[in-house]
Amino acid sequence: MNALDIILKKRSGEELSADEIRYFINGYTAGEIPDYQASALLMAVYFNGMTKRETFDLTEVMRTSGDVMDLSRISGVKVDKHSTGGVGDKVSLCVAPVAAACGVKVAKMSGRGLGHTGGTIDKLESFPGFNVSLSEEQFFNQVEDHGIAIMAQTGDVAPADKKLYALRDVTGTVENMSLIASSIMSKKLAAGSDAIVLDVKCGSGAFMKTEEDARSLASEMIEIGKRAGRKTVAVISDMEQPLGRAVGNALEVKEAIDVLNGKGPADITELSLTISGLMIWLADIASSPEEGRSIAAEAILSGAALDKLKEFVKAQGGDETCVDDPEKLDNGGSAKELCMEVKSPVNGYVMSLDALKIGTVSQHIGAGRLKKDDVIDLSAGIILEKKCGERVENGDVLARLYGRDRGRLDEASREVLGAYGFSSEEPEEKALIKDVLGL
Amino acid sequence: MNALDIILKKRSGEELSADEIRYFINGYTAGEIPDYQASALLMAVYFNGMTKRETFDLTEVMRTSGDVMDLSRISGVKVDKHSTGGVGDKVSLCVAPVAAACGVKVAKMSGRGLGHTGGTIDKLESFPGFNVSLSEEQFFNQVEDHGIAIMAQTGDVAPADKKLYALRDVTGTVENMSLIASSIMSKKLAAGSDAIVLDVKCGSGAFMKTEEDARSLASEMIEIGKRAGRKTVAVISDMEQPLGRAVGNALEVKEAIDVLNGKGPADITELSLTISGLMIWLADIASSPEEGRSIAAEAILSGAALDKLKEFVKAQGGDETCVDDPEKLDNGGSAKELCMEVKSPVNGYVMSLDALKIGTVSQHIGAGRLKKDDVIDLSAGIILEKKCGERVENGDVLARLYGRDRGRLDEASREVLGAYGFSSEEPEEKALIKDVLGL
Repeated sequence: MNALDIILKKRSGEELSADEIRYFINGYTAGEIPDYQASALLMAVYFNGMTKRETFDLTEVMRTSGDVMDLSRISGVKVDKHSTGGVGDKVSLCVAPVAAACGVKVAKMSGRGLGHTGGTIDKLESFPGFNVSLSEEQFFNQVEDHGIAIMAQTGDVAPADKKLYALRDVTGTVENMSLIASSIMSKKLAAGSDAIVLDVKCGSGAFMKTEEDARSLASEMIEIGKRAGRKTVAVISDMEQPLGRAVGNALEVKEAIDVLNGKGPADITELSLTISGLMIWLADIASSPEEGRSIAAEAILSGAALDKLKEFVKAQGGDETCVDDPEKLDNGGSAKELCMEVKSPVNGYVMSLDALKIGTVSQHIGAGRLKKDDVIDLSAGIILEKKCGERVENGDVLARLYGRDRGRLDEASREVLGAYGFSSEEPEEKALIKDVLGL
Repeated sequence: MNALDIILKKRSGEELSADEIRYFINGYTAGEIPDYQASALLMAVYFNGMTKRETFDLTEVMRTSGDVMDLSRISGVKVDKHSTGGVGDKVSLCVAPVAAACGVKVAKMSGRGLGHTGGTIDKLESFPGFNVSLSEEQFFNQVEDHGIAIMAQTGDVAPADKKLYALRDVTGTVENMSLIASSIMSKKLAAGSDAIVLDVKCGSGAFMKTEEDARSLASEMIEIGKRAGRKTVAVISDMEQPLGRAVGNALEVKEAIDVLNGKGPADITELSLTISGLMIWLADIASSPEEGRSIAAEAILSGAALDKLKEFVKAQGGDETCVDDPEKLDNGGSAKELCMEVKSPVNGYVMSLDALKIGTVSQHIGAGRLKKDDVIDLSAGIILEKKCGERVENGDVLARLYGRDRGRLDEASREVLGAYGFSSEEPEEKALIKDVLGL
């Protein structure tokens, strides 16, 4: 077996065996197969694709290339949730406490990374004192005792994927469903939960620009999950405009608290109920996703979900009084002093609100990292007072921007305005949740 | 402009501009663009191809990446000849003296390299004393004075192609007509002749296995040549079985002398007349390829071609008396002592004779290099006493093998026998020259 023959086989459109995939990926990860052969193989995969079986084998090789979590010591059904990423996506902050309040075991490792805002881990650090670095023992005990723990990714999870992804990024081989799906799932499966709810977003602010691509990616990931013996479902949700009204770290935590208070924006509330309902169902606590959703709604109504959030924040050393007094979240800093309003230049309706543009602005005013070592401004961000379908009058505030740098906010304001599209007629409402696959 | 965007553009099937090709190839040659991006681009080219314009631009960038010969100081029309390679291919040794005897200026740089036998340069070294390392001055003067000089490739010709080819070889990106054509033509054009006759071979012993592929490669190369302002024609010739009866270095020189004596095997004589006829026509010495061929045939008949060979060998310091006494060629060494005969096990006809197998055997008994630094045994090789279409009786000698190692010759004999296919009926004769393109 050698690398060149494997490249030629894939180039000719043949199916690679599990052994061939293992040989190539392990050899590449170990530095025995060079980058230039790996990128040639990846480009051949881009053109000729991979079968479901190959995709699963690739996932398995990447999953087992590093640390693998064994959550079997924790009683109950552990359910994970993963989003392919979007703008204003604070769903994890909502669904984790809701699901845990209903008896689901949520043992979640989460990331920081580059993006329009920080990751879930960054957002949680808006709670003063919150400790994202738990020992394995602390993590396991907390899930056992409180049903919920979220910690920063530690150890060396799927190093093969890390190395391959970095290569794909610079060789034009990112956009292949099998490669994307195996990359995500290798890490998710290594995290060890029994079941996974995937939130696959589509639209301008998402990695998948079209619903068709989102469906295709979701199907690939569900197939991998099922072959790995994990219950896996996927929600296809819209990301043409940002989710909710808050984009930023502390701002999004505040909005998540609103959701758990039953006072959140309709879209984020709707998606959170659907996803936590699926988690509750997958944990065998409900007999259907619909029943799961009802149980989730009750947990919000009764205040149990909000209490679980406090319990969770306190267990990880954070100041849980912020939940009742979100003004104490780490947004009291400089950014709060500097707020700039974007006003409507027209009378009419918001017809579109480009999620990608809003995300990029948010990153540039300090809410997200541009480089790996950038320090996030947890208080920076955008509140979207008007979203698609809403009536606006000339001079109405469309959005509020929070940041530290007046010059940058000035420019950002113009860009936010450019993200809005207006029409004189009321636009048709678009469905937020397009489908649920894998049921 | 950046490498990734260029990869993505080609991946999506778009045509790259001349600037983009120049940026990428020059960047790669300079070490600024890494191997892994180049191999990704090459694989995208494999799948999406290149237009004629792109192929020409790539050729030009590679041609001008290193030393370029300027033959304009030499009077007359300089005509080069290139073969895509085969087994028993000693055509250059035949056509160069014939064409020069007829007034064509042959200023040829030639290679050694890996292969079933050595290259033209190795073969010429069968003449004791032959000097393949001429200074530019010596080379120019010799062509001016004698009409012919063949020297080993010097300097840094098309280093971009060298680097790219080495990468293609290990990344499964060799087999693309645009890449193959531009690789060959970048070097041929850098060699500076006014016109080029290409001998594109097809069959088991050739790089192109099918006539269709050979035609396709020939068309690509002709197009490049014409765009570069060089008269370019291509002969499509058969390489299912070896050309002539001799495979090896000194053995092939001896056969070339036979051809120039008018006593060579029919196939190699036929191909040599066709190609030298084309060279004579391209040099404006004949008004048609047919007339060129007649002039070439006369040069053989009159002994002028053989005299030109002697003049050429002497001019480069070789022992020209070998031409009249080929036993003095450097095959008097150890290999000559060891000759092994392969005999026919059947009565019937030779139906097939696998050129690739014969080539591989010849390489393994010392006639070719397996590694770059191997020393060739100039006397080693194979004489094919029987070829396709010929009648054989049980016990007839099919082939004679010359080498130094009895054990290796034993194994080689079995392999040579395995290269023969027999039938009880006389097979149909196949055309050696399938077409001439670019007229």
